Amino acid sequence: MRDSYHEALDSVTDQLVTMMRAVGSMIDRASSALLDADLGKAESVIAQDEDIDALALELEERATDLLALQQPVATDLRIVTGALRSSATIERMGDLARHVAKIARMRYPECAVPDSVRPIFVEMAAEASLMAARVGDVIADQNLALALEVETLDDRMDDLNVQLLHTLLSGWTGSVDQAVDLTLLSRFYERYADHAVSMARRIVYTMTGTRYDELEKR
Amino acid sequence: MRDSYHEALDSVTDQLVTMMRAVGSMIDRASSALLDADLGKAESVIAQDEDIDALALELEERATDLLALQQPVATDLRIVTGALRSSATIERMGDLARHVAKIARMRYPECAVPDSVRPIFVEMAAEASLMAARVGDVIADQNLALALEVETLDDRMDDLNVQLLHTLLSGWTGSVDQAVDLTLLSRFYERYADHAVSMARRIVYTMTGTRYDELEKR
Repeated sequence: MRDSYHEALDSVTDQLVTMMRAVGSMIDRASSALLDADLGKAESVIAQDEDIDALALELEERATDLLALQQPVATDLRIVTGALRSSATIERMGDLARHVAKIARMRYPECAVPDSVRPIFVEMAAEASLMAARVGDVIADQNLALALEVETLDDRMDDLNVQLLHTLLSGWTGSVDQAVDLTLLSRFYERYADHAVSMARRIVYTMTGTRYDELEKR
Repeated sequence: MRDSYHEALDSVTDQLVTMMRAVGSMIDRASSALLDADLGKAESVIAQDEDIDALALELEERATDLLALQQPVATDLRIVTGALRSSATIERMGDLARHVAKIARMRYPECAVPDSVRPIFVEMAAEASLMAARVGDVIADQNLALALEVETLDDRMDDLNVQLLHTLLSGWTGSVDQAVDLTLLSRFYERYADHAVSMARRIVYTMTGTRYDELEKR
C-alpha cells in the first residue's frame, strides 16, 4: 500500500504527464489549424490554454504544499522542485501553441503558410508533436534514453528554423505580411521545441541528480 | 545577529537582485548595440550571458539546499520556491538581451533598425530598461507599489509591439530582411517585458501569499 506522502508525490508526476499530453495535443491541433486553415481547431486550442494555466497553478500549489508539509529530500525533493519549474515551462508550451493557433485564426479562411514553405512547417509540426510525446513518455516511464532523443529532435527543429529564415532572407517573393507571420510561426515552433528540451533535461536531473551537460562529458 | 539560516535566505534574495541588475545592464547595452551599431557592446552582452546562466544554476542549487537542509515554511518557503522559479525567468531575460545583441552584431556595421521605426525601438529600449530596474528595486526593497507599476510599463510595451507589427503589415517599403529582423527584435523586447512582469507578480506572491490577479479583484 502507498502512504499519502508517496501518493502525493506520484500525483505530482501524474499531473506533469497529463499537462504534457495536453500541450502535445494543443500543438497538434494548432498545426492542423495552421496547415489546413481549420478555424474550429484554432478556437479549441485558444480556449484550452486557460485550462493549462489553471493546471499549472494547481501543480505549483500542490508542489509547494508537499515541500511545506512533507519536507522531501534527495530524489523526492528533486521531483518536487522539478515540478515547480516544469509547470512554468509547460504553461509556456501551451502559450506557444495558442500563438500558432491565433495566427491561423487571424488569416482564416486563407492559410498563413504559403505552398513554397509548407514542407518546412509540415516537418516542424511533426517534430514538435513527436517531442511533446517523447517528453510525456520520459516522465511517465522515467526513461533516460528517450530524454536524450529529445535533444536530437531539437537539432532538427533548429535546422528547420534556419532554413525558413534563410528562405525569407534570400529573395522572398511573397508579401511582407507573410514574412512577418512566418518569422513568428517559426520562432514559436522553435521555442516550443526548446521548452521540450528543458523538460527532458530537467527529468534527467530529477532521475539521476546529474545535469545533462555533465552527463554528456562522461 | 543573523543566524546562518536567515543569512542563507537573505543571500538568495541578494542573488536575485544581483542577477536582475545584470540582465538590466545587458538589455541596456544590447539596446545601445542595436541603436548605435556598437559592436563592442554587442559582444559584451553575448559574452555575459554565460555568467547569467552560471548564476542561475548556482541560485537553483542554493535554493534546493535550503529546502533540503532548513525546511522553510510560510513566507520563507515562498521566498525559496519563488527564487527557484525566478532563476529560470532571469536566465531567459539574459537570453533575450543576447538575441537582441546578436542581431545588432549580424547587421554591423549597418544598423538593424531603420530610421522610420527608430522611435519605436528607442522607446522599447527605455521601457525594458526601466522595467528591469523596477523589478530589481521591488526585490531589494520589497515594495509592492513598484511591482504594480511594472504592469503599467508592460501595457506600453505591448502597444509598441502592436505599433511595430502594424507598421510592417501596412505597406512596409523596407526590405524583407529588415522586416524579419524587426519582427524578431520587437518580439524579444516584448518577451523581456513579459518576464519582468512574471518576476514582479512572483514577488507580490512571495510577499503577500496572494496572487496578483486575486489582488486586482479586491
